Amino acid sequence: MKVYRSVKSLAREIRRIKKQDKSIGLVPTMGFLHQGHLSLIRKAKKENDFIVVSIFVNPAQFGPKEDFRKYPRDAAGDLALCGKEGVDAVFAPSPKDMYPEGYRTYVNVEGLSGALCGASRPGHFRGVATVVIKLFNIAGPDAAYFGQKDAQQAIVIKRMARDLNIPVRIKVMPTVREKDGLAMSSRNAYLDAKGREDALCLHESLKLAKGLFDRGEREPARIIKKMREVIKRNKRAEIEYISIVDQEGLGAVDRARKGALIALAVRVGGTRLIDNIVLN
Amino acid sequence: MKVYRSVKSLAREIRRIKKQDKSIGLVPTMGFLHQGHLSLIRKAKKENDFIVVSIFVNPAQFGPKEDFRKYPRDAAGDLALCGKEGVDAVFAPSPKDMYPEGYRTYVNVEGLSGALCGASRPGHFRGVATVVIKLFNIAGPDAAYFGQKDAQQAIVIKRMARDLNIPVRIKVMPTVREKDGLAMSSRNAYLDAKGREDALCLHESLKLAKGLFDRGEREPARIIKKMREVIKRNKRAEIEYISIVDQEGLGAVDRARKGALIALAVRVGGTRLIDNIVLN
Repeated sequence: MKVYRSVKSLAREIRRIKKQDKSIGLVPTMGFLHQGHLSLIRKAKKENDFIVVSIFVNPAQFGPKEDFRKYPRDAAGDLALCGKEGVDAVFAPSPKDMYPEGYRTYVNVEGLSGALCGASRPGHFRGVATVVIKLFNIAGPDAAYFGQKDAQQAIVIKRMARDLNIPVRIKVMPTVREKDGLAMSSRNAYLDAKGREDALCLHESLKLAKGLFDRGEREPARIIKKMREVIKRNKRAEIEYISIVDQEGLGAVDRARKGALIALAVRVGGTRLIDNIVLN
Repeated sequence: MKVYRSVKSLAREIRRIKKQDKSIGLVPTMGFLHQGHLSLIRKAKKENDFIVVSIFVNPAQFGPKEDFRKYPRDAAGDLALCGKEGVDAVFAPSPKDMYPEGYRTYVNVEGLSGALCGASRPGHFRGVATVVIKLFNIAGPDAAYFGQKDAQQAIVIKRMARDLNIPVRIKVMPTVREKDGLAMSSRNAYLDAKGREDALCLHESLKLAKGLFDRGEREPARIIKKMREVIKRNKRAEIEYISIVDQEGLGAVDRARKGALIALAVRVGGTRLIDNIVLN
């Protein structure tokens, strides 16, 4: 495994790899790797000859009051995990190399970027789409791997790739959960013991929603109301949104149906957590 | 020469060409080809193994009140010229194939898109940047060729390619002119006999500016004032802008110096014409 710390050095290696006609799998991450990331790496490894994992806490996707600075980082631990998984190239550029002085180009997936998480995080998906297209252009992947936990991100990126005719397959892998159901997330590191317990309410509310749907409930408002009740049991939990939307346009559905996405964001003692399920 | 009318069909051919390790040169055009386009094609041909010319009047770069519908088209003539020049692939997709229903992804080169032509054509360079990145993703060129006549377009595209790490060389070729100095442009076809005469004032004013600079004039306001006088001699000529800017950020310069861009847009009897020179 080699670590590339500049755009130029990885781009050079990629040209070499492409000459060998090897397929390239890319796993874009912000580091602080957990089992969710590893599931993406393993899938990439199964499907490609050469695996690139990018580790880059992308300033462009954080708002001015968000947690860019305190976002958890563990460079040594990440490299050890990548090495163990048989990753070929780790790409860990500096913010300055990715966004040099005078940088001014951004990709907007209009309409999809303002819904759900976009409402409280203006500019977030513009930052995500922009860094991802940059990573695609640098690493030239045949396939790129994302987690279903960040459902809106996956939808935005699939739309971008399709709209801009990017020759890459976007693979979205299931959310990996702790034994008690909490969706794996680097931000779980922010939770104290009480917060860790309270954080279960996201998954609990989604399980309840699934149960209601399985028993025939189709009215979004009723499902959301019951989910809200589950979460409200925790005094420290503040709901940012609970939405049932179609996966294509992220618009609210008038009836819950197969393929609809139930997504929510909840602040638990200051830590913003998200989770979702797709009805089936 | 083969003509590809769908994204899919060209993308398939490009995969085949890349397997053969041939270099690809792309010349993006809106058709109605003239000597300016041919100079790009010839340069592309000199530098690459496989030449793609795209012919696509891009709706995304026209404002609602602009000339998308009446923009001159000559499919048969264009194909004949491409055939004669030894083009390998002509890409002539439909608007629906390029912008299918639900399309919503756009590239913005912020700051550069609002200056000069961008002031009177909001959304124009967003449309240009978007279609060009799409063409890059479809045709996978090693190099792409643009004309200096559209100076701002060339600057926006170079910036986009650099910012988004697109693995393509952007080549900007000199403006090709009629014998009397008029910059070649598909929109010259709009001019009647009187308009054709009046249209010379753009080049005349640029020649004057160059003369002033060569004789030591460095004050932008004085240069612009004299240019304005040349153009005002034609009663049907309406100046949209005359600007002397730095090529990096397109900001007005406080002193004319080598490398500065003098650009102007003038309406001649309803036809909007642009031209420019770089001081050297």
